[in-house]
Amino acid sequence: MSLYPVVLCGGSGSRLWPASRPGRPKQFLPLVGERSSFQDTLLRLAAITGAKPPIVVTGKAMVDDVVAQSTEIAVAVTVLIEPEARDSGPAVAAAAAYVKSIDPNGVILMLASDHYIGQPELFAEAALLAAAAADAEGVIVTFGVQPTSPATGYGYIRPGAVVSGSVRRVDAFVEKPDAATALTHVAAGYLWNSGNFAFRADVILEEMEVFEPALAEGAAAAVAAAVTDGALVRLDAEAFARATAKSLDYAVMERTKRAAVVPASFSWSDLGAWDSIWEASDRDHTGNSITGDALLIDTTGTLVRTDGPFVGVIGLNDVAVIVDGGSVLVCRREDAQKVKGLVDALKARGG
Amino acid sequence: MSLYPVVLCGGSGSRLWPASRPGRPKQFLPLVGERSSFQDTLLRLAAITGAKPPIVVTGKAMVDDVVAQSTEIAVAVTVLIEPEARDSGPAVAAAAAYVKSIDPNGVILMLASDHYIGQPELFAEAALLAAAAADAEGVIVTFGVQPTSPATGYGYIRPGAVVSGSVRRVDAFVEKPDAATALTHVAAGYLWNSGNFAFRADVILEEMEVFEPALAEGAAAAVAAAVTDGALVRLDAEAFARATAKSLDYAVMERTKRAAVVPASFSWSDLGAWDSIWEASDRDHTGNSITGDALLIDTTGTLVRTDGPFVGVIGLNDVAVIVDGGSVLVCRREDAQKVKGLVDALKARGG
Repeated sequence: MSLYPVVLCGGSGSRLWPASRPGRPKQFLPLVGERSSFQDTLLRLAAITGAKPPIVVTGKAMVDDVVAQSTEIAVAVTVLIEPEARDSGPAVAAAAAYVKSIDPNGVILMLASDHYIGQPELFAEAALLAAAAADAEGVIVTFGVQPTSPATGYGYIRPGAVVSGSVRRVDAFVEKPDAATALTHVAAGYLWNSGNFAFRADVILEEMEVFEPALAEGAAAAVAAAVTDGALVRLDAEAFARATAKSLDYAVMERTKRAAVVPASFSWSDLGAWDSIWEASDRDHTGNSITGDALLIDTTGTLVRTDGPFVGVIGLNDVAVIVDGGSVLVCRREDAQKVKGLVDALKARGG
Repeated sequence: MSLYPVVLCGGSGSRLWPASRPGRPKQFLPLVGERSSFQDTLLRLAAITGAKPPIVVTGKAMVDDVVAQSTEIAVAVTVLIEPEARDSGPAVAAAAAYVKSIDPNGVILMLASDHYIGQPELFAEAALLAAAAADAEGVIVTFGVQPTSPATGYGYIRPGAVVSGSVRRVDAFVEKPDAATALTHVAAGYLWNSGNFAFRADVILEEMEVFEPALAEGAAAAVAAAVTDGALVRLDAEAFARATAKSLDYAVMERTKRAAVVPASFSWSDLGAWDSIWEASDRDHTGNSITGDALLIDTTGTLVRTDGPFVGVIGLNDVAVIVDGGSVLVCRREDAQKVKGLVDALKARGG
């Protein structure tokens, strides 16, 4: 079995304003620790024994960041360049068509570029397990993370019959729950849907052809007509435009009978909002996490990040204070999801 | 009776960091409304029928600000320039000696430059009442503000026997109380000690000579040897250095038998910290007061001031967020007094 890591690198992350902004997507920011989540993802993959060099799927605007950040950590990557953003379905289909053109039996390990994973060794273990099941059984395996809390910000997976070893069928993908429902999900052994996958290139393409033939055709043609320039592979714009813009979840995962899940025990976060950044960060004994020049008095459970200005905080608990690019955010940690609303309001007034 | 307003303009206000900083004392900042408290003080005095042009006592470093800000609002002032800061006693004694040299029967209305007063007309009424009692009875009259809350940040005055009309003897000056004591003070009819006064120039000088002869002598000699340059009166440095550095309270008020108090019903604040700024500011129906570019979501009772950077606040109550001069303060309103500790800590680390 040959394992081809594919990293999807296309998001923006408006709930991480003011750090994440247009032209400065969150996967390239050092949100937890010294490196960006994109870099941590590449290093995590480089540590998997026998895995091929990663293939990064990204948009034209992000190619420079991808090249610079992978070069910085000395990880060689192939870059598939999307002519336009058409959601994850066409990106995955193009990556699968590209891998299949190299290796008809290739197995893909498909990862988001903007997630946090705590223990690379547990991840590598789960990845090899998932890839082996994908290879042997032809299943499309998702990583189902063992919940550490009844989170309402994640979708859940209800595991079904055993496929092999710890790999189970997916009984159902469950929407982000309210707090009460989340509690019952966790009690019932549901897993967090991490949105990371392992599948054979030919299997995912077959499913694409069944459920979304136009998507499959456009993506395959975009690869066939791609222009290669060293490590950069520019997908054909005309063909790619024919691929239906749809997420992998809607295009395949919620319809296929081949969905499986491998329970994973690594700590994981989608780094979706400032509360998850706090959660994933190193914290002192009072629960504060500070990046940059700051002084906290009578303050606990608080995330402070500043790109320059000094920040003083007095008498607050469970708050995020983010100073970045000349803007200031002060937000109760549990209201971190509402940052999107703030950004929308800012856009509406032209800010 | 001739009424000579004297404005003491010498403080710094470290609890109002980051707006107030070394070289940028709080009395010159527009903390409540469009004008600085120094300017509001001058305009309040200019509105008192029959009062002479104000005399401002200040340090060398602040003369430019005094001249610029009084010129801006077209109020002519005389400026007594202290060669060095020696607390309020010598400043008051010098002002009294200066007034006495012009008018041996002059009555002084002595005001802080960094306080807020809500109703200028009630202030003018109380000022004339206090000045009349000072003139007729030779008492040193303080303005005792009717408390609107059991504040722990102010000293209190226990009023005693009637002097004339509503003017009472001061029975005792009471230290800043704890919360429980403050409640009993308010219930017992104690008044806030505002630190603003009316007295005859000759009376205060007599008291100075009795209690602090060196202070009185040095200040008087500094005036006698002063160099006048238009509206600027530079006190003599050598003589002024002989005046004991001591506050008016310690030098005279806590010792004299001539202390009296006029109960005042204007709204008043010493603008000592961000909670009093919030208190004195216009607020919307959710209790928020915003100066500068900011957007507040699910937030109440909060003061936001920014000198440029956009500020977004989500899900907080009763907080102050101050962005000024490249620093950021986020502080629970009721912890506003602790800003001094933050500034001390900053100084200690050399920031």
